[in-house]
This record gives sequence, structure tokens and C-alpha cells, in this order.
Amino acid sequence: MAAPAGRIAALRGQLAQAGLQACLVPTADPHLSEYPPGHWLARAWLSGFDGSAGSLLVTADFAGLWTDSRYWVQAEAQLRDSGIVLMRAGAADVPEMPAWVAAHLRPGDALAVDGRVLDRASAERWQRGLRAAGIRLVLDQDPVGAVWADRPGLPDAAVFEHLPPQACRARGDNLAAVRQAMREQGADYHLLSTLDDIAWLLNLRGADVDYNPVFLAHALLDDQQARLYVAAGKIAADLAARLAADGVVLRDYADLAVDLAGLPAEAAVLVDPARVTAGMLAPAPQVRLIESINPSQLLKAAKNAAEADNIRQAMAQDGAALCEFFAWFEAALADGRRLSEIDVDTHLSAARARRPGFVSLSFATIAGFNANGAMPHYRATESAHAVIQGDGLLLIDSGGQYLGGTTDITRVVPIGTPSAAQRDDYTAVLQAHIALARAQFPVDTPSSALDVLARQPLWRLGLDYGHGTGHGVGYFLNVHEGPQVIAVRAHARPHQGMRAGMLTSNEPGLYRAGLWGVRIENLVLAVPAQRTDFGDFLQFETVTLCPIDTRCVVRERLSADELAWLNHYHQQVRERLLPLVDGAARDWLLARTQAL
Amino acid sequence: MAAPAGRIAALRGQLAQAGLQACLVPTADPHLSEYPPGHWLARAWLSGFDGSAGSLLVTADFAGLWTDSRYWVQAEAQLRDSGIVLMRAGAADVPEMPAWVAAHLRPGDALAVDGRVLDRASAERWQRGLRAAGIRLVLDQDPVGAVWADRPGLPDAAVFEHLPPQACRARGDNLAAVRQAMREQGADYHLLSTLDDIAWLLNLRGADVDYNPVFLAHALLDDQQARLYVAAGKIAADLAARLAADGVVLRDYADLAVDLAGLPAEAAVLVDPARVTAGMLAPAPQVRLIESINPSQLLKAAKNAAEADNIRQAMAQDGAALCEFFAWFEAALADGRRLSEIDVDTHLSAARARRPGFVSLSFATIAGFNANGAMPHYRATESAHAVIQGDGLLLIDSGGQYLGGTTDITRVVPIGTPSAAQRDDYTAVLQAHIALARAQFPVDTPSSALDVLARQPLWRLGLDYGHGTGHGVGYFLNVHEGPQVIAVRAHARPHQGMRAGMLTSNEPGLYRAGLWGVRIENLVLAVPAQRTDFGDFLQFETVTLCPIDTRCVVRERLSADELAWLNHYHQQVRERLLPLVDGAARDWLLARTQAL
Repeated sequence: MAAPAGRIAALRGQLAQAGLQACLVPTADPHLSEYPPGHWLARAWLSGFDGSAGSLLVTADFAGLWTDSRYWVQAEAQLRDSGIVLMRAGAADVPEMPAWVAAHLRPGDALAVDGRVLDRASAERWQRGLRAAGIRLVLDQDPVGAVWADRPGLPDAAVFEHLPPQACRARGDNLAAVRQAMREQGADYHLLSTLDDIAWLLNLRGADVDYNPVFLAHALLDDQQARLYVAAGKIAADLAARLAADGVVLRDYADLAVDLAGLPAEAAVLVDPARVTAGMLAPAPQVRLIESINPSQLLKAAKNAAEADNIRQAMAQDGAALCEFFAWFEAALADGRRLSEIDVDTHLSAARARRPGFVSLSFATIAGFNANGAMPHYRATESAHAVIQGDGLLLIDSGGQYLGGTTDITRVVPIGTPSAAQRDDYTAVLQAHIALARAQFPVDTPSSALDVLARQPLWRLGLDYGHGTGHGVGYFLNVHEGPQVIAVRAHARPHQGMRAGMLTSNEPGLYRAGLWGVRIENLVLAVPAQRTDFGDFLQFETVTLCPIDTRCVVRERLSADELAWLNHYHQQVRERLLPLVDGAARDWLLARTQAL
Repeated sequence: MAAPAGRIAALRGQLAQAGLQACLVPTADPHLSEYPPGHWLARAWLSGFDGSAGSLLVTADFAGLWTDSRYWVQAEAQLRDSGIVLMRAGAADVPEMPAWVAAHLRPGDALAVDGRVLDRASAERWQRGLRAAGIRLVLDQDPVGAVWADRPGLPDAAVFEHLPPQACRARGDNLAAVRQAMREQGADYHLLSTLDDIAWLLNLRGADVDYNPVFLAHALLDDQQARLYVAAGKIAADLAARLAADGVVLRDYADLAVDLAGLPAEAAVLVDPARVTAGMLAPAPQVRLIESINPSQLLKAAKNAAEADNIRQAMAQDGAALCEFFAWFEAALADGRRLSEIDVDTHLSAARARRPGFVSLSFATIAGFNANGAMPHYRATESAHAVIQGDGLLLIDSGGQYLGGTTDITRVVPIGTPSAAQRDDYTAVLQAHIALARAQFPVDTPSSALDVLARQPLWRLGLDYGHGTGHGVGYFLNVHEGPQVIAVRAHARPHQGMRAGMLTSNEPGLYRAGLWGVRIENLVLAVPAQRTDFGDFLQFETVTLCPIDTRCVVRERLSADELAWLNHYHQQVRERLLPLVDGAARDWLLARTQAL
């Protein structure tokens, strides 16, 4: 019996014993992190499917994994022989999970889901979906944990302080700003579970998960104190003393439930329903919840002037690393060396690691040659990757965590002689990128509204791409942050108005399945453009510094404005990076920043 | 004592007698019409303010009128000496109405509002807003009606049939399509109160309100019957017989309450919470409501091929009327005649009335010279209007109801010698108009997402306008219909995906308060553009036919694409309108459609 099949059999035994008819296993942790630690990867452990999104549902006679189209190929392969049905979420004939449960369970049945990892907003949606069918949602049991003998422990990396000059806000100021928002909303307390919010609030960083410099913690603020729930030993005594000076009281990670239970009846607690789990709130039925976005989400999204300066420096270091990498890469290819996508990752990561202020990658490098570049979420592995040879396009999406900023950049470079069709696609994506880069718009324009500016040059050719055009980026924090998002379909989300200081990706793409992919990504900073009778207007400063390969550009397709933007960008890249590179990297920079 | 003060005193007496502490008087009728008949203009009767939007709140010691910025100047003037406070809705220091009520009434108090004119969705919002404050919402009393002695009766215009060739769908097909949607949603019944939905569904038209060719009615569908609630005598016997053949049963307008009360317990009734009032549903507490958009909203938005052909013909007749008007207007001005904004309305309306198929105007003509053109909702009156003399810009927004379509067009023409600044503004608005007219986009793109395409040419110059760029337009029905809407701020609305056949306005503008206004409006029909690997794409066919005055265009500002669009448009306008005009109108058409 395959491991997943045995594990699901064990889970079924546990369900029967506990009088439960079904179990939902989502992909989440108590902090609703993008990258949960191994302790919380129950869905992957049970099913064998290790993609980053998907939910497993197990009943006595059914096991199904719902995941979206990005993962269908991978899931189909990994679920083979598991007895688990792949439910292609989003396909016309696949019901949504609550509808499936409502249709297949009977009134009086119970569905268990570990409430510690189910966000409050989702829990409410499930409650609504099941109530009419008379099915109970049980949030206080963990049937998977009961059968998971070798469950990994929680990570225990040390917490460190983000210090000036890279830290550009005082901890006390951050706490005061959040407390001001609490007062405005009439909140006595504010519970935070999301790790980027807590790290930002307290100028602390960690290494508990890959790529995001965060640490496992919760925080509970009142008007005087900030209680920080973190495992013993992760914060050194001297740091603890500095925190105490700012009114930060250390409590054990497990003490949150006790403290919540001890809050006064009818205390007003501010929580973000998308950023706390139902299970975390369960010990405090006596309080009154004020549901609103975490104030820190709005505060940290708008970078201040000192942060912007540090970001510009980090971008220059990152760009210099890319110059060094590309100079090596082109020379090695010219020498006839056999290079794979893995080599790209290795050498690019090493070039970044040599740069001052570098801490880690900000996400797993995507290096995809030709057909692999057509998969936006591709990752080369030792067992499955391509060798870079022949003609075509190589797509590299990568980024670094620096003490002074987080980077995220995608470039596509020609290998051998790209085809006319490849150059056409590349040019169209470049036009999409430039259209957004040149945008000007009123303060507080919903960020998603800008998406169409990037898409119009592609739509006009009957082309499109299936992902958003832009996500917010943290400051030496998560590479994916909110609240702004540039995506047509995300438009209904609140709090996404564009404000000065917001750092966002600009990454239109184009994917020919099985053939090649193109994506051109820079980070852009929203900066004031002008004030007129019609309001305050913002524009984007492109802060990523690295040549956009002009060898794939069909020059005559570009308008005069587009050509001017591209040449001006390369002039800036050259000026800013020249002081940071020498030798072959310098020669490469000079060659690749020539005006078109 | 001014009339409003006396009426409000009478209302206060009525409230005291009925044990009510406050009364809300919204602007609406039982059909949630854009233009309610006089019988339902209680807010205007009570307050003296006759703008088309606003809500009055009266308590024992306070009377306040909430209205948005479009009406502040008018309301301030009309409320003088009434004792009614102008509450500038949207201003930072003005609370929303439910918040004001919650703060000023006491637990146990009662707020009355005529439930017959309060849509279900708003009623729910009010209930939620008042529940926490312990205030009751009373929906079954009409204190205003009790003191309104000379209240106008209901209109009694005859109902007529919309016939082929202008009617392009069979009544039976419409009914079958709506019943199909009912079945898909599990509905036994479907209640309709909105007049455009009912008129469309049954191929009937009327003249009960200005500008919209509709009649007062409700309709209740089940799988067999369509009960039509309409005042006796409005439908002639022969029409009644034809309706009966399609399963349409006539009932008196007042019988809806009885019939709803008689529905079986737990019957599933499909209602659109934005398109039925709380009062209409009150007699049927025993039923189960399925809340969703009226299926007819979606069905009638997508015009079929025969309707599109008729629309093109109606547009040509409308354009010919405009040629005749403008030829007369320019000649009269050249002759030194003294012309006012009122003369524009009179002569333009007369030119339309001479065209075959013309029924009525589709809204009150807006003719605004210079500063008056800066008010998007301006209407010249006998007592207040401008004479068209000197230099500047004249804005004319007008439209007609034809048996084969509804038109809506805005043009701006130079008077004397417009200034360089006026020409700059005109050119920028034209570029905005062309940007949207040239758009191509995937089927089902949220219509609001397209708004930014029109705004970007203006935003880039630090300019903007405070209204949406496009609204849906009915087919010989309301000039403002949904569900599509091209407006950044409307993006969260559901059901607004663009589909082939949708007819929408394209009307960017620019307003310099106290100086001048520019708006250029055509109607555009969504038509298939291409099918590619990336999906089905739509584009806009501009169906409005009338020269866009090129004398205000700064030619060198236009890109080659923009110039080509403009010249191509004028070539089409000339070809299509030449057969329909002669004499001075023909000469004017030839002059104004010359390539730039």
C-alpha cells in the first residue's frame, strides 16, 4: 500500500472513532503564511501532492484533492495510486468544496477541520455553506495530527533585530501608529497572527520559513503593552531587554489561548478576518470582535523616503549581481559549456550572495528554457530540468532578501537565434510592461484598475496571460504582500487604493504551452507626479535595475514613446550599475545597455 | 410659513400621533424607477428640493436633506426658509443617514419609511444599521401620504405592443428564457417590479413616465403563467387577447399583495434585492426568497443581430436629425440671430421629431454654453439659461427614443473662436474617447476595468472627470440600463462582464468649473473581434453617427492611430448619413466630415 493510501486509511479510522463523517485538510498554518513550515504540511503528508495550493477532503468512502489549473499536471502524477481523486477546481463540472460536502453528507453529519489553520473569513463561509444542509463544522479537533506519528517539530531559528540604517522606522512609532488606528476603531485590543505584520511592527526578523525573513509568533496589543508570543529561547536576553523598553512583553508561543481566555468580557478586539484563524479566536468567546484589515498592512505598504533610498541601493546591488551572472552565463555558453536550468539557479544565487546586505533568496528561482518557461510556476529540480541548448528563450524569475529591501525580477534572454514568433511575443510583452511603467493616475485609484493598461497591447493582438500583473512587495519582508494588487479579477478587494510609497511588481507575460514563455518584471515605486485642480497624481518609478535584453525586440513595433522609455531606462541602469561592477560584468553591462 | 415648513409641521403631527420618532423619505417609487411619477415625489413635495437624488429625514426637532455634491448648489437655494438642513452627503463631516439616526434616536424609538418604495437591499442595510442601536424600522406606514392632501394620482397612459420589425424577439421566447433561468436557480416563482424588465419581457411599451417608454406594472411568473399587474383600462381588449395567447394573465395593479399572500408556504421566489421593494414582499412572509439578479437584465443587455441592425438604422436617423439641427444652428448664428440654450433644445427636439420611428426624447436635453457646460447635470430653464454669444464651447447632450432603438449622444461645438486651452481640453477628451473606442478585450472582461483606458490620456495630463465613462443603453427602453457599467469605482458590482451585443455609452469628459465643459459621447456595440488560443475577444463598433467637430482639435497632438480612427469615423458618418439629408444639412455634413 502506498504511503498516502495507508495514511488516509489511518485517518478514516480516526474519523470513525471520533464520530466524524469527513475531514477537510487545507494548506495553511496558524499564521496563514504563504510558506508554512513542515509541521503544518498535513495535506502534503497525507496526499503525497506537494504543490503550494490545494485542499484535501476525506470521507469514509471518498478522498478528493481540490487544486487549481496551475497544479493539475503535477497533482495527477503525484496522486497516482493514492486512491485520491483529483478535483480540478475551476473546471465547469467540478463543484466547489462546500457544495460537494453539502450534497454528499447527510443532515447531522460532522465535518472536521483543524480550526487553528482555518482563517476566520473562510470558517464563516463554510458555516454558511453547511448550515442549510444541516451539517456541523467541527473546528476543535485535529484528526490528522492524531495519526501523524512523525510530524515535524516547529522551527526554532533565532529572532534578530532589524537595525538602522536599514530599519527606517522606530518600533515605538510603529506601535503608536497601530494604536492610533485601534483607537479610531474603538478597539481595546488587537490580535495579530500574520508573521509579516508582527515582524514589521516590532522591527524583528527571523528565519523560521524559507524565503520570508519571519518567525513564528502572535501578538496581542492593548493601549500599554504589546504581548509577543514566541517560543522560549528564540529571543536573546539583550534583545528582550530592548523590546521591554518599548513595552513589548514576551510570552510563550503557547500562552496566547490562556491570555485570550482571560480578556475582559465585551472587550473590543480588532482582528483581520483574513489574517487570524478561527481556532486562535476560539478561546475568547466573551470578547466583541471588530473586523477590519490589520492597520499594519496599510502602514507598511507605503514605504517612507529612507526606505525608498535603501530599496534603490538594494536594487543596484541586485542588478550588479545579475550583471555578473549574465556575463558569466553568456561566456560559458559561448565556450560551449553544457549548462542546465539548475546551473542558472546555482550561479545566480552565488552572485547575489556575494553582494553586501544579502540575506537569502526571496523565493525559489524559476529558470525555464523554452517549454519550461511557459509554466509560470515552474521549478527545475535535480530529477527534472532542461539543458539550455539550441535556439529559444530562457526565462529567469528570481529575487533576493537584502537588509535594505526585497527584490523580484524576471528577465528573458535569447539563446541561439530566437524565432520571429518569439521576438513578436517578447516585443508585445515589453509593450505591456512599458504601458504600465508609464502610467499616471490619481492617488487612491484602485490598483487593480491599472491592470488593463498592461493588458491592452496584448489584448489588441488577441493575446493574454492568466496571472495578475502586479503584487505588493515588502521591505526586507515577504516578496508577496498586500494590500495593493494589479489584477482585473481582484478588483473587488477593499483597501487596494494606490498610495505614494507603495512598491509593486510590474510583470506582464505571455505563455505558449509546450513552446516558450515570456515575462518581463521590474518593481515599481509609486511616487508623486503632480498636483492639479483635478487632484494629486502618482506615477511609477521603476526601481529594478537590470538590462532588458534588446536582442529580442522588434524595434519597428515600438512607438516613439516606448522606444524613449526603453532607452532612458537603459541609460539609468548603466549609470547606476557601472560603479558596482568591473571586468566581464562591466563589459556585459555596457553592451546590453546600448540604446536601441 | 413657507409651504415646506407647513408640510413638515403637519408630518411631525402625524408622526407624534402614530408614535413614531422619525420618518425617512427617499426618492423612489415601487418600481425603483429612474424617473418616478409625481405620485411618488414625496421628498420634493415635502422639502421643495426637486433634484433627482436625495433623501429627507424628519424628527420632532430636526429635518435634514442628504444629497450628493451634484445638487448642493440647487438644494441650498431650494431649501432656503424651509427649516431643512442641507446635509452634504459625501463630505467628510457629514455622517451617513443610518449613522445619524443611530446617534440621535434612542433605543426603543421607531423610524418610519414607506416600505413600498424602499428596495430590499437598502432595507436590509437599514435594519443592520439600526439593530445595534435598538431602533425599530417601521415599513408598513406612510405618514407622508397621510398628510399629503393633493397627492397626484398615478399615470394612466395606454400600454402598446412593441411589434416587428422593430421587436426582434418573440414574447414567448423571452418568457421561455426567463423560465429557464428560474429552473436553473430552483425558483417556483419570479417577481418583477422594474418597468424596463417587464416591458422587455412582454414586448410592451407605455408612456407613464417621461423619457422611458414604460408603464406601471408588476409581474409574477411561474412555470405556466405570467401574471401582469396593471391598472384597469391601460391594456386594450385585442392586446389582452394576444397576451393571453402567450399565457399572460391580466390582474389589477393592486392585486399583487393578495396574490403574493396566496403563494404556497415555502414556495421558492426569485427576486432581485435591488429591484424589488421591501414593501412589495411584505405580504408574503411564508415564501422562501432566492435573491439574484433579474434574468431579464442579462438577457436584454445583449442585443441580437436583428436588434443591432435596427439600432444602426435608428442611429442614422438620429444622426440625420443632428445634421439638420446643426446646419440650421450654424446658419442662424452666422445670421446674427440671438439664440439661447433653450432654442437648442427646441430646434433639436423638433428635428428628431421629424424622423421616422421617433417616439420621444430619451432624456431631457442638456445644452450648456461655457460655464453651464461644466455642470454635467445642467438643464437650461425658462428662468435660468444662457444666450449663446461670444467665444467658447457649447455642449449638447441629447437622445431620442425610436421604435428601433434608443440614442444618447454628446457633442461639443466651437462658438466664435475657442481658446487654446479649450482646444487642448477638447483634444484630450477626444483622445480619451478614441482610446476606449479602439479597445479590444476578452469576452467577460469586467466592464469597469475598461474605464482606465479612457482615463489614461487625461490622467497623464493631470486631468480627470467625476462621472463614469459608460452606461448600458436599452433597446427602445431606458437610456440608462445595466448590468454593464464602465466606471472604476463600480468595479465590485457583479454581472458586469462584457458580452457581445452589449450597447454602452463612451462618454469621457472634462469640466472646468465656472469656465467650460467638454464631453464626447457615442454609443458603442460590443462585437466579436477574433478568436485565438487565448480566448474570444470583443471590440467596439461605434454606432452613433454624427460628426465630431474637428475645428477644436489640436491635430499635432493626435497619434497616427488616433487620426486614422477619427478620419475613418467621419468617412463612415458621411457614407451612412448622406442618403438621409439634403440641402443645407447635406452641405453641413460634407463640410464637417472632411478628413483632418
